[in-house]
Amino acid sequence: MTSRDQILSLFRLNFGEFVSGQEISSELNISRAAVWKQVKLLRELGFEIDAQRSRGYRLLSGPDVLLSAEIERGLQARTIGRSLLCLDRLDSTNAKVRQLAEEGAEGGTVVIADRQSAGRGRLGRRWESPPSVNLYCSILLRPQIPVQQAPQLTFLSAVAVAETLNHLYQLSARVKWPNDILVGGAKIAGLLNEVNAETEQIHFVVLGVGINLNMTAAQFPDELLYPATSVLLEQGTAIDRTAFVQAFLQRLDGYYQEFLAEGFVPIRRRWEALCDLLNTPVEVDQNPGRLQGTVIGLDSDGALRVQLDNGKVERVLAGDVRPVGQT
Amino acid sequence: MTSRDQILSLFRLNFGEFVSGQEISSELNISRAAVWKQVKLLRELGFEIDAQRSRGYRLLSGPDVLLSAEIERGLQARTIGRSLLCLDRLDSTNAKVRQLAEEGAEGGTVVIADRQSAGRGRLGRRWESPPSVNLYCSILLRPQIPVQQAPQLTFLSAVAVAETLNHLYQLSARVKWPNDILVGGAKIAGLLNEVNAETEQIHFVVLGVGINLNMTAAQFPDELLYPATSVLLEQGTAIDRTAFVQAFLQRLDGYYQEFLAEGFVPIRRRWEALCDLLNTPVEVDQNPGRLQGTVIGLDSDGALRVQLDNGKVERVLAGDVRPVGQT
Repeated sequence: MTSRDQILSLFRLNFGEFVSGQEISSELNISRAAVWKQVKLLRELGFEIDAQRSRGYRLLSGPDVLLSAEIERGLQARTIGRSLLCLDRLDSTNAKVRQLAEEGAEGGTVVIADRQSAGRGRLGRRWESPPSVNLYCSILLRPQIPVQQAPQLTFLSAVAVAETLNHLYQLSARVKWPNDILVGGAKIAGLLNEVNAETEQIHFVVLGVGINLNMTAAQFPDELLYPATSVLLEQGTAIDRTAFVQAFLQRLDGYYQEFLAEGFVPIRRRWEALCDLLNTPVEVDQNPGRLQGTVIGLDSDGALRVQLDNGKVERVLAGDVRPVGQT
Repeated sequence: MTSRDQILSLFRLNFGEFVSGQEISSELNISRAAVWKQVKLLRELGFEIDAQRSRGYRLLSGPDVLLSAEIERGLQARTIGRSLLCLDRLDSTNAKVRQLAEEGAEGGTVVIADRQSAGRGRLGRRWESPPSVNLYCSILLRPQIPVQQAPQLTFLSAVAVAETLNHLYQLSARVKWPNDILVGGAKIAGLLNEVNAETEQIHFVVLGVGINLNMTAAQFPDELLYPATSVLLEQGTAIDRTAFVQAFLQRLDGYYQEFLAEGFVPIRRRWEALCDLLNTPVEVDQNPGRLQGTVIGLDSDGALRVQLDNGKVERVLAGDVRPVGQT
């Protein structure tokens, strides 16, 4: 953590109360002039900090900045979050984690960015990433599984996102094959998972997660491919992002441990229970052609199982799936 | 191509005949002093070059160096070899192609190294890579297929290697699941294929191929995990590496076009026809446990299908497979 983040963390722990410059100086082992410099920087970032010569500093208000020390406090995960990095701005958290992975970072490494300048969704689509409101997060995993099983981790992360939203905020989030999370038909989160592997063994997987938390209606771009929403829009009030991140990483870690011990079956059951289109007549645009049928479940490699009218079961590995009649 | 490689190519085209300094100088558009400098460099690399003031230069003998212009001459591939790079020395051709892929290189890019300082086989095992005798080659592909199908390309490249060896030299090369090529039970080639993908779509695949061509018995390390051989050891005479590379890339391209048009089925049939252990009782060491059964074929995702004594069919995705009784 930087000195700035350490001071901010200290202010937040004592929110509304004065902390003396001397106290900060000795806690962080920096000079009082350095403390003052950091306070000025924080003010420039939009933090309202009261400074009184006799009493010290107190935080009155400020943007919602995620701090790794605050997330780590109370996080009891076995793998995920072993190493946790919160950064102001990145091109894309996936690209950063890929780079760390190439450099040998350990499985469980998590990178969070306050904003992304080139956030990406699946198939290279743009992912809106305004600052200080949402969660843009990538997680490095190094499971010893063959590459054919890598897509299973996409469904694992989808379940963790949807269940965390439902558990914390009583939303009715559903999962949309292969990597979206919807509330009332509008997209609230998306996953972009990448794998780097040889034939028999994965080198690493990057789970990329974008979740709309405190995003306001005005912050969505005018032209969206799909309707979108956020927890704020669903609930009417802003949520505590730190508490969300902790709950999400904790749940993700739990499912990951279960996956390592028991394989994909328990995750598949949970995913099917959350699936928006199970037992629903659907159309699938494929290249070439289109098929119609009813979604009957998920296959062990992540293919969507669609039963045609003639009873035959097709396995869908790619394509856009939608209810019959919806364009 | 470098000036050195251009001069070498010119010498080879006129093998044993004199080429005047003036001719080389105007063909390559370099000074006659530069020609002389390159000739000196080639001599340092072990080329025996006769130089006579009145007649020019002629190549008498030299190490077998692969040149991209010579490989490209006569190569009629649609995708593979569009861009072809022959280098003296690399850590690993796979690493180089991965780097080119990240920088946006097109599908079909081929990199060949005369020697590798850190050649790798599957699961991080070392691959012996002495200079000027074998083929160390990596091929970049960008097919639009889901990640679950990526392992199919391993079997495609295995078939292309084995059939090129059998066709050119009347060997009886067989394929060993998942990525070895054997002659008489000894390893003659190995594949190390890597994939970089998101859930639904591949970013790129690197087909890494190491084939023992003119390697002598003395060039194999004393301690080998498996018995190994080379075309030279099988045939008793050295082969023309350039002709081999051309035939291999041509065949690989043909199967790749077929794969794009018709999918995996034709490749699977060829692979099964070449499989060393089809219909053979085998043991498979897995982690944890071991299974015994009979190999009955290859599954559409590259899993080996093994029928147990009770009739049940197991899909093997990872593990060492060997005939019963062999250790």
